[in-house]
Amino acid sequence: MKTTTISNVKEAIIRFKELDEKICHLNDILSLVSWDQKTKAPKKSASIFASAIGTLSTETFKLAISDEMTELLEYLSLDENSAELELEMAAAVRERKAHSRKLAKIPEAMYKEYSILVSRANAVWEEAREKSDFSIFEETLGKIVSYTKKFIELYGYEGHPYNALLEDYEPGLTVEKLDPLFAELRTRSVALLDRLKRKGAEPAVDFLEADYEIEKQKEFNSFIVPKLGFDMAAGRLDESAHPFAQPINTGDVRLTTRYRLNNMRTAIFGTIHESGHGMYEQGINPDYEGTVLREGASFGIHESQSRFYENFIGRSSSFWNHFYPKLQEHFPEQLKDVELDAFCRGINQVAPSFIRVEADELTYNLHIMVRYEIEKGLFDGSIEVKDLPKVWNEKMNEYLGITPPNDSLGVLQDVHWSFGGFGYFPSYSLGNLYAAQIYYTLKKEHPELESFIEKGELSFIREWLRERIHQYGKLFTPNELIVKATGEELNASYLMNYLEEKYSRVYKLNAV
Amino acid sequence: MKTTTISNVKEAIIRFKELDEKICHLNDILSLVSWDQKTKAPKKSASIFASAIGTLSTETFKLAISDEMTELLEYLSLDENSAELELEMAAAVRERKAHSRKLAKIPEAMYKEYSILVSRANAVWEEAREKSDFSIFEETLGKIVSYTKKFIELYGYEGHPYNALLEDYEPGLTVEKLDPLFAELRTRSVALLDRLKRKGAEPAVDFLEADYEIEKQKEFNSFIVPKLGFDMAAGRLDESAHPFAQPINTGDVRLTTRYRLNNMRTAIFGTIHESGHGMYEQGINPDYEGTVLREGASFGIHESQSRFYENFIGRSSSFWNHFYPKLQEHFPEQLKDVELDAFCRGINQVAPSFIRVEADELTYNLHIMVRYEIEKGLFDGSIEVKDLPKVWNEKMNEYLGITPPNDSLGVLQDVHWSFGGFGYFPSYSLGNLYAAQIYYTLKKEHPELESFIEKGELSFIREWLRERIHQYGKLFTPNELIVKATGEELNASYLMNYLEEKYSRVYKLNAV
Repeated sequence: MKTTTISNVKEAIIRFKELDEKICHLNDILSLVSWDQKTKAPKKSASIFASAIGTLSTETFKLAISDEMTELLEYLSLDENSAELELEMAAAVRERKAHSRKLAKIPEAMYKEYSILVSRANAVWEEAREKSDFSIFEETLGKIVSYTKKFIELYGYEGHPYNALLEDYEPGLTVEKLDPLFAELRTRSVALLDRLKRKGAEPAVDFLEADYEIEKQKEFNSFIVPKLGFDMAAGRLDESAHPFAQPINTGDVRLTTRYRLNNMRTAIFGTIHESGHGMYEQGINPDYEGTVLREGASFGIHESQSRFYENFIGRSSSFWNHFYPKLQEHFPEQLKDVELDAFCRGINQVAPSFIRVEADELTYNLHIMVRYEIEKGLFDGSIEVKDLPKVWNEKMNEYLGITPPNDSLGVLQDVHWSFGGFGYFPSYSLGNLYAAQIYYTLKKEHPELESFIEKGELSFIREWLRERIHQYGKLFTPNELIVKATGEELNASYLMNYLEEKYSRVYKLNAV
Repeated sequence: MKTTTISNVKEAIIRFKELDEKICHLNDILSLVSWDQKTKAPKKSASIFASAIGTLSTETFKLAISDEMTELLEYLSLDENSAELELEMAAAVRERKAHSRKLAKIPEAMYKEYSILVSRANAVWEEAREKSDFSIFEETLGKIVSYTKKFIELYGYEGHPYNALLEDYEPGLTVEKLDPLFAELRTRSVALLDRLKRKGAEPAVDFLEADYEIEKQKEFNSFIVPKLGFDMAAGRLDESAHPFAQPINTGDVRLTTRYRLNNMRTAIFGTIHESGHGMYEQGINPDYEGTVLREGASFGIHESQSRFYENFIGRSSSFWNHFYPKLQEHFPEQLKDVELDAFCRGINQVAPSFIRVEADELTYNLHIMVRYEIEKGLFDGSIEVKDLPKVWNEKMNEYLGITPPNDSLGVLQDVHWSFGGFGYFPSYSLGNLYAAQIYYTLKKEHPELESFIEKGELSFIREWLRERIHQYGKLFTPNELIVKATGEELNASYLMNYLEEKYSRVYKLNAV
């Protein structure tokens, strides 16, 4: 393999493009398959189809770390060759390298053992969560952590060992950069939460827990999704146990949501959230089809788009100023006595709770801070797996002021660790930080923003995001992209200023 | 490639199984993708996703005709080796050989030219059909026929050149075997049709063309499909422009149907038809998953299962004796004044018409005879492409007594020729012939059959079919299978006796 078979850069580019395209095509098909399994496949299919999916995944994986790909990446990364690459090609090489470099460092046998461990871990975690008993999951989680520690050593890292994991989700971000951002986020959020709980006027929310007929919720969702700017001719909206947005290609992005009779917020805000992800994928430059660039820049940037629409648009008074009458039409009984202002305060209630996915806009980040501190500790050796329930509960109490009564409402609630997804959680808060900074920039450039939203004219927002963020796919690193879009590096003040201003209003902190 | 790398039969079997499994897994995924494109994919997806599908199809195709496969098939077919193979392995080798032998004979460049021609032909055919102008399609069809003639020479054949095409759909069947079967079918059908039209009492059908609310039709269909024995936990029922049954695996078989407000027969009989295909696929031995044997024995045998349920069960008085009250519950207005007997006569009306897919049970085969005679003529040189409209209309007049007023109601109605599917049409009538012979056998062994159907107890029929036909997949050739299941080779009398008896009753031919 070491004797190169490549004669020149031009040839290398052609071969790279072919291979990249093949991998992307097979990944697109795997995306469709994954969507199908979660939404349409009949019950008896899964256990049989798993081996077919395994076959295609393996073939795709093999191509990504093939000798051919390794050789091409090495060749195209040589100084004299990389200088000849155009922007797109250089970015594609960077992305493929990031993907295959780390995988190539893990011995095949070790990777196989780990894959088997992880594929079995989900069932163990589910059982533990169901029985609310961390001890059932402890051994398995211990093994996953210990493999991950080995991987970190094999990958190599600078600074904190957790950096080796973070870069899979947010290339370029490190503990050293995150710590100050998250410190500001944590301390100001804890302080704000304390003020709201002590001095704030608690909004009423009882009307949100009435019976909201599910068929009517579906109608309203189908009405709202295209209004946001999601193109229904290039996507779908279905139901699934856990909501998600699954891109197949720029002409086919599939959203799911779920409905709760007694909680209309679940479906509406979940759907708006997924629409944000979906518009990002629909807006990527179609020339990037069949290349590794046709994906969001990072997990954090992706989450910024969903949070932007869910919170900055969807939970704003300007938005409901226009859409609330329509919602009332759908639910005249439930909402006839609820004024717009009361509705907007209700959907913005802050209430510390045990479960992350049900958290409000403010306490959500505190849930992430708990996980961030724990993950760092697991990999710098300051926290041991056996102590997780205790540490979890202490941090929940410290940040949110509440202590989970059991493991299933505490340390066992999230699926991520069971698939080895360490480093993933920070993306959620990064998404909020990016979203606030983007929102601030948009508003600075378009001071008339709110008046457009109040008229339900949302399409120019999508156009702006498409121009600044969406179109680029993976062309830029997250940091390059946010600087390009907003003029500065990520800064936690935008989110905190926004939250302080918003909740002072909602909770009438400055009222006489 | 010619120097073998295989040391012994055991090793060859292991390698063959691995490769066969990989091909089957990728084909299962392609099946899912194909279902999705026809039922769920958003409008803007198709043009982009086509290249991803192309990539996976090409990879799968390459594996099927790979040097590795060719070498394994040659090795396992050597007399001294094939003697060592178990029944299943011998059948798998037979099926893979049939598949790759012919493909390997076509030069790659020629195959590529042909693929491009055929991929463009659909649009040309559609335009021609829309404008009802054969001349638009003539040149393209001429090229497809001329490529097919070259393929026939490259494949080689015994007897009639059309045999080289027939064997793709019905392995082992030849013009020499089909001619006498179809001659009996044609002459007796023409004679019966003539008697019905001259002496029969025409059933009323006006009530079938009332408005049948589509939601209610869907409800009834969802009720009837599991009653037939189709397992809804191992399948789905959706809508599509053209109904089909798409197996993904034995735990996942997807049916589609279509609804017409003014013709409830379309959905009901279409759905029963596809359920027949579906139960076949659900009933194949699950040990055959991941092997080439996990498919129906042939197009004709597959069609026998759908026709069996559609016609022999679904259009019988015994069936409606049980289910008609339920249908009346769904459509009280439309059916309140229609007696069971009148309903059963109505759904069995015989009416020569121009369009094959709308034809009744008797004239359907005459539509196939038109196509069979024409396809034979195209490939033995007795019919030229430019004369097709004329020949078509003459044969329609000869067999059905009607002359299509234009090409779109005539020679342009079917999609098959545009994808080069010559040899496909006979399967439809073979399905009817097989179905009748199978029905005769079932009834001989279970004289109480009708009384079970009258009670709506249909599951034992599926069990019997599963035992005799379904479970075997492609283990046996169609001829072996029909002999095993019914004790004799295919015989046209069963179908003709059944049709003569049935229509004498429906048309009251023997009434005083």
